[in-house]
Amino acid sequence: MSSKEIKQPASALSSPRFCNMGNFMRMQKIESLDGLDFVVVGIPFDTASSFRVGSRFGPNGIRNISVMMKPNNAILEVNILDELKGGDYGDVEVIPGYILPTYENIEKELTPIVQAGVVPIALGGDHSITLAELRAVAKGHGKVSLVHFDSHADINEEVFGERYNHGTPFRRAIEEGLIDPHTSIQVGMRGSLYDPDEFKKAAELGLKVIPAHEVRELGFEETINQIKERVGNNKVFLTFDIDFVDPAYAPGTGTPEVGGFTSYETLGILRALKELNFVAFDIVEVAPCYDSCEITTLLAANIAFEFMSILAVQKKNGKK
Amino acid sequence: MSSKEIKQPASALSSPRFCNMGNFMRMQKIESLDGLDFVVVGIPFDTASSFRVGSRFGPNGIRNISVMMKPNNAILEVNILDELKGGDYGDVEVIPGYILPTYENIEKELTPIVQAGVVPIALGGDHSITLAELRAVAKGHGKVSLVHFDSHADINEEVFGERYNHGTPFRRAIEEGLIDPHTSIQVGMRGSLYDPDEFKKAAELGLKVIPAHEVRELGFEETINQIKERVGNNKVFLTFDIDFVDPAYAPGTGTPEVGGFTSYETLGILRALKELNFVAFDIVEVAPCYDSCEITTLLAANIAFEFMSILAVQKKNGKK
Amino acid sequence: MSSKEIKQPASALSSPRFCNMGNFMRMQKIESLDGLDFVVVGIPFDTASSFRVGSRFGPNGIRNISVMMKPNNAILEVNILDELKGGDYGDVEVIPGYILPTYENIEKELTPIVQAGVVPIALGGDHSITLAELRAVAKGHGKVSLVHFDSHADINEEVFGERYNHGTPFRRAIEEGLIDPHTSIQVGMRGSLYDPDEFKKAAELGLKVIPAHEVRELGFEETINQIKERVGNNKVFLTFDIDFVDPAYAPGTGTPEVGGFTSYETLGILRALKELNFVAFDIVEVAPCYDSCEITTLLAANIAFEFMSILAVQKKNGKK
Amino acid sequence: MSSKEIKQPASALSSPRFCNMGNFMRMQKIESLDGLDFVVVGIPFDTASSFRVGSRFGPNGIRNISVMMKPNNAILEVNILDELKGGDYGDVEVIPGYILPTYENIEKELTPIVQAGVVPIALGGDHSITLAELRAVAKGHGKVSLVHFDSHADINEEVFGERYNHGTPFRRAIEEGLIDPHTSIQVGMRGSLYDPDEFKKAAELGLKVIPAHEVRELGFEETINQIKERVGNNKVFLTFDIDFVDPAYAPGTGTPEVGGFTSYETLGILRALKELNFVAFDIVEVAPCYDSCEITTLLAANIAFEFMSILAVQKKNGKK
Amino acid sequence: MSSKEIKQPASALSSPRFCNMGNFMRMQKIESLDGLDFVVVGIPFDTASSFRVGSRFGPNGIRNISVMMKPNNAILEVNILDELKGGDYGDVEVIPGYILPTYENIEKELTPIVQAGVVPIALGGDHSITLAELRAVAKGHGKVSLVHFDSHADINEEVFGERYNHGTPFRRAIEEGLIDPHTSIQVGMRGSLYDPDEFKKAAELGLKVIPAHEVRELGFEETINQIKERVGNNKVFLTFDIDFVDPAYAPGTGTPEVGGFTSYETLGILRALKELNFVAFDIVEVAPCYDSCEITTLLAANIAFEFMSILAVQKKNGKK
Amino acid sequence: MSSKEIKQPASALSSPRFCNMGNFMRMQKIESLDGLDFVVVGIPFDTASSFRVGSRFGPNGIRNISVMMKPNNAILEVNILDELKGGDYGDVEVIPGYILPTYENIEKELTPIVQAGVVPIALGGDHSITLAELRAVAKGHGKVSLVHFDSHADINEEVFGERYNHGTPFRRAIEEGLIDPHTSIQVGMRGSLYDPDEFKKAAELGLKVIPAHEVRELGFEETINQIKERVGNNKVFLTFDIDFVDPAYAPGTGTPEVGGFTSYETLGILRALKELNFVAFDIVEVAPCYDSCEITTLLAANIAFEFMSILAVQKKNGKK
Repeated sequence: MSSKEIKQPASALSSPRFCNMGNFMRMQKIESLDGLDFVVVGIPFDTASSFRVGSRFGPNGIRNISVMMKPNNAILEVNILDELKGGDYGDVEVIPGYILPTYENIEKELTPIVQAGVVPIALGGDHSITLAELRAVAKGHGKVSLVHFDSHADINEEVFGERYNHGTPFRRAIEEGLIDPHTSIQVGMRGSLYDPDEFKKAAELGLKVIPAHEVRELGFEETINQIKERVGNNKVFLTFDIDFVDPAYAPGTGTPEVGGFTSYETLGILRALKELNFVAFDIVEVAPCYDSCEITTLLAANIAFEFMSILAVQKKNGKK
Repeated sequence: MSSKEIKQPASALSSPRFCNMGNFMRMQKIESLDGLDFVVVGIPFDTASSFRVGSRFGPNGIRNISVMMKPNNAILEVNILDELKGGDYGDVEVIPGYILPTYENIEKELTPIVQAGVVPIALGGDHSITLAELRAVAKGHGKVSLVHFDSHADINEEVFGERYNHGTPFRRAIEEGLIDPHTSIQVGMRGSLYDPDEFKKAAELGLKVIPAHEVRELGFEETINQIKERVGNNKVFLTFDIDFVDPAYAPGTGTPEVGGFTSYETLGILRALKELNFVAFDIVEVAPCYDSCEITTLLAANIAFEFMSILAVQKKNGKK
Repeated sequence: MSSKEIKQPASALSSPRFCNMGNFMRMQKIESLDGLDFVVVGIPFDTASSFRVGSRFGPNGIRNISVMMKPNNAILEVNILDELKGGDYGDVEVIPGYILPTYENIEKELTPIVQAGVVPIALGGDHSITLAELRAVAKGHGKVSLVHFDSHADINEEVFGERYNHGTPFRRAIEEGLIDPHTSIQVGMRGSLYDPDEFKKAAELGLKVIPAHEVRELGFEETINQIKERVGNNKVFLTFDIDFVDPAYAPGTGTPEVGGFTSYETLGILRALKELNFVAFDIVEVAPCYDSCEITTLLAANIAFEFMSILAVQKKNGKK
Repeated sequence: MSSKEIKQPASALSSPRFCNMGNFMRMQKIESLDGLDFVVVGIPFDTASSFRVGSRFGPNGIRNISVMMKPNNAILEVNILDELKGGDYGDVEVIPGYILPTYENIEKELTPIVQAGVVPIALGGDHSITLAELRAVAKGHGKVSLVHFDSHADINEEVFGERYNHGTPFRRAIEEGLIDPHTSIQVGMRGSLYDPDEFKKAAELGLKVIPAHEVRELGFEETINQIKERVGNNKVFLTFDIDFVDPAYAPGTGTPEVGGFTSYETLGILRALKELNFVAFDIVEVAPCYDSCEITTLLAANIAFEFMSILAVQKKNGKK
Repeated sequence: MSSKEIKQPASALSSPRFCNMGNFMRMQKIESLDGLDFVVVGIPFDTASSFRVGSRFGPNGIRNISVMMKPNNAILEVNILDELKGGDYGDVEVIPGYILPTYENIEKELTPIVQAGVVPIALGGDHSITLAELRAVAKGHGKVSLVHFDSHADINEEVFGERYNHGTPFRRAIEEGLIDPHTSIQVGMRGSLYDPDEFKKAAELGLKVIPAHEVRELGFEETINQIKERVGNNKVFLTFDIDFVDPAYAPGTGTPEVGGFTSYETLGILRALKELNFVAFDIVEVAPCYDSCEITTLLAANIAFEFMSILAVQKKNGKK
Repeated sequence: MSSKEIKQPASALSSPRFCNMGNFMRMQKIESLDGLDFVVVGIPFDTASSFRVGSRFGPNGIRNISVMMKPNNAILEVNILDELKGGDYGDVEVIPGYILPTYENIEKELTPIVQAGVVPIALGGDHSITLAELRAVAKGHGKVSLVHFDSHADINEEVFGERYNHGTPFRRAIEEGLIDPHTSIQVGMRGSLYDPDEFKKAAELGLKVIPAHEVRELGFEETINQIKERVGNNKVFLTFDIDFVDPAYAPGTGTPEVGGFTSYETLGILRALKELNFVAFDIVEVAPCYDSCEITTLLAANIAFEFMSILAVQKKNGKK
C-alpha cells in the first residue's frame, strides 16, 4: 500500500471495538514501507527468558486490547494518524527455542524498515530481542543513545553460562558498538541483586543508572532533566521493559519487581521526553498469561500509543 | 416494614460474614418506603455497553462482598445505621437487550422512591442507566446538578448510530433538561480520544470538565473546592463510574483507562464533598467477571458506604 | 483476491503459531467472493443473551486459538484447503445493544455470500444471530432444513416480553417460513425447564426433538440415522450451540447445562453427517471470558474445522 | 409465612436471572415451617477441612448460580413447586474455627425442621457437618440408613489426633447410633489410600462400600439395585460429597480425586433412587474459590434440584 | 548442619529459579540451630480466620515465589547471607480446625529457636498465630514491644463468642503480659468499624494507634519517628499483616481493606526501622488462592527479605 | 542417605498436607542412589515448546499437589513405599533457552541413575527432554522399546527448520538407535495434521501407531493387548504426554487436543500394563499456568503414582 492510502482505523463510535480485531488499533496491515513514518511490528520471542515465559503471546495480547485506543492524544494535543503514516507490519518470524537464528531474522526484517527511515515500534517478546533490534538500527543510524526503562539493568556478562539471554543484551550492545554508553541512561532499577556492585559495573561500562529509589529522591522533573541532558541531540532508541511499572499495575510479566512506578507516572515520564530524537522504540516483557484481565496489555498499548504520539508531535512541529 | 423496624445488620463479630449474604451489608430487605432515608437499589443492566459487557452482575457482586462493610465510618465519625433508616430495595426489573423499555422500568421503579424523599443509591449496571435515574430524580426534585466522576465524559451525540448507549447519557440528560450543565461538573477524564475537541464540546454543552491531568496539577484540595463552588447549594446527583479509578485498583470494568486514581484518593474526594446537597447517587460499570478476586466490587461497596456516610453525617448534623 | 490466489496458511512447522495471528487458522483475509467455497465470518453480537454476556468476544477468541488447527482431517482423510477455496471474511458490523438493526446488518452482509453460492461458517455471538443468518440463507436457498445441536430448544414465544432474544429464534424462523420444521431436528436438549410441555410445543411447531437422555438411550448411531432420515436430501443449515457440550468440556458459554456431551462424541456426530446437503453453518454462544484457558474456544475451532472438512469431503467426492 | 403462600419463583422468561438473586432458585425466604415439605438450608462451615478450605462460601456460591434452575424436571416429569411447599431457610449460624459449638448450632437449628416433618436439603460446608445433621435427623426419625456418595469413606478414627474432622463423621455417626451401618452404603470411593484395609474397616463397621472401580465393573444399573436393596424401606439420609464427581466436572472442592464420575452419570444415579424413603439430603464440599467459572456450583445446584424432584415425584405419586 | 556450613543459595544466574524450589530463597533446610542468626519458619494455620480462609497455603506460596529474591539489598547495602547464618526451618506442625492445640505446637516449636538466640521470621497463616509466637518469644526475651502493621487492630474481646480468633490476638497478648502496650504501636488501621470507639479502646489497653489517614497526614517521616520513639531500645516483635498494603498491591488476603499503602511505601517504612532491636518477625494473612499471579506472595517474600536485611545491617554494624 | 533409611512420608492423617511441601509426596530428598528402586526427578525445561510455554513449572506444580497422594494403591493392592526404596532426586540443572547443552546435562545427570539400576520417573518439562532421557537410558540398558501415550506422534523431521524441538524427539531417537521402533508403539494420536501421511510416516520409521479413534474402535482391552504384544519382554521406556488426556481433564498443557481420553480411562490403561518390563518413565508437557485449579497437576501426580505402583507390584511379585 502506498503512503497516501493510509487510513484512520475504524472508530469505535461507529464500529464496535470487538469487530475485526487483529491489527494494532485496527490500523491497516502494512505491505509497503514507502512514505511511512512508523510501523508497529511484533517480535513474539521469549526463549531467552530466565524465569516465567509467555511473552511470545505479548504482541497478540497487546493488539487484542489495543482496540481500546483512539487516535487523539488529549495531553499532547495531537491525532497520531492525522500526522503520521503507519500501521501494523505483522510479526517477525521468530524461531522458538533458538536465539541466534532468531536474532538473524529480527535483524534481517527490521533493517529495511530502519533503512527506509521508518521508525519501528516493536512489541516484544522478552528483552533479548532488543539486541537484534539495535543491530538493525545501527545499520541505518550508526551508534545510538539508549534510554532504558526497566527494573533490571540487563548487563550481566552471562546467564546460565550463556552470553545471549534477556539478562545480557545491553552489555552485548555496548561490546558490539551499537549504543554509546556515555550518552545512554537506565532508569528504574530496583529489587534485590546478585551483585552488590551492579550499579558500579554499569558505570564501568560507561552507563548512567538512576535506580528507582533515586528517581523518588530526585523527583520526576529532575529525573527527566537528567535523561534529556544525558542523550542531548543524539539519535535515541527507547526500550521499555514493562516491569519498570509496579506489579499492581502490570502483573503480566516474567520477572516482576515490587516497589515500582504507577501507570500515571510512567506515561508522564514518556510524554516529557517528547523532544528527544527517537529513531526506534520497543515495549517488551509483556506476558499475557500472567496478566489480570488485560490491565498489563492495556498499559503496554498505551505506552506504544505515547511513542506514536511523540512522533506525531514532532512531525506536527516540523521536527521530523 | 415501617421505618421504626430498621435494624442494624448482623455484626460479623457474632454472625460470620458468609452467612445469610444477599442484601447489601446484610441490611434488611425494604418493603415499604415509609420513613426511610435511603435505599440501595440494583440496576443490573449492561445492554448499552460498547466494549466489555458483564456489569449486569455488578449489583450482586457488590452485595456479595459488601458483607465486609461495618456500620461505623471512622473518619467521618458516624454510624450509618444509627443515623439513617434504609436497606436493600432489591433490583429494578430490567429487560436485557432492550434499552428503551428498561429505561421506562427504571424510571417507573425509582420515581416513588424519589418522591417519597428517599435517597436512592443505585448499583449498576452500565452508565446508560443514569439517564433513566435522572428522569426519576427530576420528577421529585426538578433539574439537578451533576457531579460526575469518570474517565470518560459520556457526552457523545451517538454511538453506533444510536442515541442511547453508555457513551451518551449526559448529552441526553442536558437535552431533556434533567441536569443543569452550568452547575454540573465532570472530573477525571483521561485516555485517548476520538474527538480532539471533546472537552470543548463539553464546554459548549455548558459543562465544566476537570480532566485527570488537571486534577493532578490542581491538587485534590483545589479540585474539591472547584466542585463545591460549581454546584453550590443545588440539589446534586452524584454519579460514579468505577473507571475513574485506575485499573490496578479496579480492573473489573468494561472500558478501563490507565493513569487513574487510587482508592485512597477516591474515598478522600468523596468524603470531602460531605456538605453538598445530595439527592441521589449511583456507582456504575462494575463488571465482576473482569475483576481480580473482588477488589473492584469491594471498592464499589466502600464507595456506596461513603455515600451513606455522607447522608448520615448530614442527618447527624441536622442538615437533613 | 480471486479464487486462484487462495493459499494454504502458514504451517506451524515453519512459522510459529503465535506469529501473525488474527484470521481463522491464519487463512487469508477474503476480499472477493469470486469462486469461493466457504468463508468464515464473525458475528460478534451478544445483546440478546438472557444470562451471562460476552459471546461478542467469541469470534476473536476462536480465531486466536484456531492457530492450533492444521489443514488435514485425519479421520475424514481430507485437506480442507487442497479441496476448498475460502478464508476469513472478517466480522459483520453489529450494533451492540440493538437487535433489530443488527439483524438487518447480518442479513445484508450474508446475503451476497449466500447468493454467490459460498457456504458461510459463522462464528457467534449469541444464538439470536441465527435468525438473521437464516433470513439471508432463505434468500439464496429458500426454506431449508435445520439441524440444531443445543441444550435448549430456543423456541420460546417471548422472553422478557420481547420477541427477539437468544431464546426465541427458531419459533421466529418457522413463523417467517425460513425453515421447514417437518424436516428439521433439534438434538441434545436437557436441564430443568419452565414449561413442562416444552417438547410437546416443539412438536406442535412441527419440529422433531431428541433430548439428551434420548440420545443416550438411542445411542449415537441411531440418533445419527434419525437426523439423516429427518432431513433427507434437503438443503441444511447446521446450527451448533456450544452448550450442547458439557460444561466440563465447554465452560465458556452463557447458559451452560450439566449432563452434556463430550468433545469426542460431538465431533463424531458431526463427522457422521458428512453426506448431508449443507448450505450454511454456525457455532454460537462461545463466551471467552467464562472459558478455562481456551478449552471452549479450541473446541469451537475444531467444530468449525469439521464443518470445513465435511465440505471438503463432499467436494473431493464430487458432490459439490 | 404460612404454607399456602409459597410461590413459584420468578421465571427467567420474564425476570432476568441476575435480578434479585440471593435465595436458592430465587425461592421465597422461609420464616415458618408450617406445612412445608422441604427447606434449603446453608451450613457454611469449613473448619474441619484437612486440605483446601473455602466451602464456607459453598452455600452462597450455589445460591448465586441456582438462578439458572427452572422448576420442571423434564425426565422425572414433575414441577417441584407445583407439588412441594418449600423455600430457602437461610444459613445456620456457624462458628468458624470451632467445631463443637458449631455442631451444637447445627443440631439446634435443624432439629425443629426435622421434627416438623420438613425435609432439610443442606448446602455445605465440609463433610463434618453431616454428623451434626444426623444428630438432628435422629431426633426426628431415629436411626436412619445412609446413602453416601463420595470419593472418600470418611471413617477415620482420628485425623491430626482429633476425633472431629471432615474425615471422620461416619465412624462417629455409627458410634453415636445415628445411622444403621447394616442398611447403609457408600459409593464411589477411589484414589490412593493411607490404610490398605480401608474397605475392610468399613466392613468391620458394618458398612457396605462400592468403590468407584466396582461401580464401573458392576454397571450403574446393578449399582443402583444394590443401593436399593441395601436400604430397603428404611428412612434414608442421602449425603453427597461433590468429589464423587470427577474434577473435570467439579474442580471446586477441597480434596478432589481423579478418575471420578461425570455429571450425566451422577444425575442418573440420583434419579434412579427416586423411590427411596428420604428424610434428609445434603450436598457438601463445594468450594467456589477453586471452581472454574461456576461449573461446580452449577452441578451442585442441579444435584439439589434432583433431591427436590425426587420429593416432588413422591408427593405427586402419593407416597408422601 | 553446623553454622559454618551455611551456604549462599544457588544463584539464578547459573541455576534457573524454577529448579529445586521448595525452601525460602532456595536456602538450605535448617536442621540445627547452632550458631544461627535467623530461621524462616512456616506456620500454615488459618482456622482462626473470620472471613476468607486459605492462608494455610501462605508459607508454601511465599516460598515458591521467593526464588526470585537475590541476597543483596541494594538500598541497605548488605548481602544477607554474607552477614547472617540462617535458612529454612520448615513448618510448624499445626492442627487444622483446632486453635488451642495448634497454639501449643507453635509455642513448643518456636521456644527452642528463641531460646537459642535465633530470630524467627515466621510466614503465616492467619494473625491468630502471633499470640502463640509471642508466648514463645516471651520465654526467651520477657515482655516485648510490638510494632504492628495492619489495617485492623485485632484487639476484639471476642469474635463469634470465642476468645481466640484472628481478630483478638493483641488483647490476649496484653492480658497474658507478653507485650508491653505502653511501648507498642499499631500502624495503618482503616476501613469501616463495628465499634466507633475502637481507637479509644486501644488507648485504654495502653496501645498507641496511628490509623492510615493519620499516617497520610503525618507523613512517613514523622510516622517513623513516632514508631522509633515509642519503642526506644526495647526488644521488638514486628508483626506485619499483608492487608496493611492496598488490595491493588496485595489482593491475596482474607480481609482486604481498600485505601491502603503501596509496596514502595511499605518497604520504605520497614527499612527506616533498621535500628530497632528486633527479636522476632512475622508476615501473616497471605492467602495465595485469592492472589493475582503471585503479586501478593512476591511482596510478602520481599517483606521477609527486608526483615533479614535489617538483621544483616545490624550485624554488619556490630549491633548484634 | 543409604537405602535402609528410606522412610514413609508423613501421613496427612497426622501432619497436614500443606506442611513441609516441596518433595514429591513429601518423600525424602535423595542424596545417594545406593539400593534405591526409583527416583522422581524434575526436568524443568520448556525451551523446545512450539506453542504455549510454561512446563518449566511442571515439576514444582506436580510436587505441590502431590501432597494429596497416599502410599497405598487400592486397585493394585500395594503400598509403594513398603515395597520400594526411592524418593525425590530434585531437578536436573537445565539451561533455559539452550537445547543442546540442556540435553547434555540431562544425559549426564540421568546416566548414573540408570546405571545404578534405579528407575527414573521424570517430571517434565516439554517432550523434547525424552530424547536426552533415552540417551541416558540407552547407556544403561541399550536400545529399548517405547510405549508412548500422546495426542501427537512427535516424529517431525524438523520444526522451524531445526532438528531439536518437542515435535521431533522420536524420529531422533530412532535415528540415534535409542529405541527399537519395531517393538515400540504410539497410542492416542488425534487432531488435525499438517501431513496427511503422518501415520504412514510413522510406519515407515517402523513404529506402530494406534490413533485415538482406533483406540475407541478397538476398545481398551484390545488396545492394551496390542501394546503388550508389541513390546513383549523388552525393556520399556514409558513416556506420557499429558495431552493424551482430554483438555477437560488436563487443560494445563501447551498443545491440547480435544476429543481425548478421561482420567479414569488413562489410569486404567496404565495399570493394565503392570507386567511390562519398565526401565524408565516420564510424564511431560504439564504447564501449570494454563491449569484450572491444579486438576492437571493432580492427574500428573496420579500418573506418576501409578508408575511407582507398577514397580511396587512387580517387586512384590518378585519380578524385580
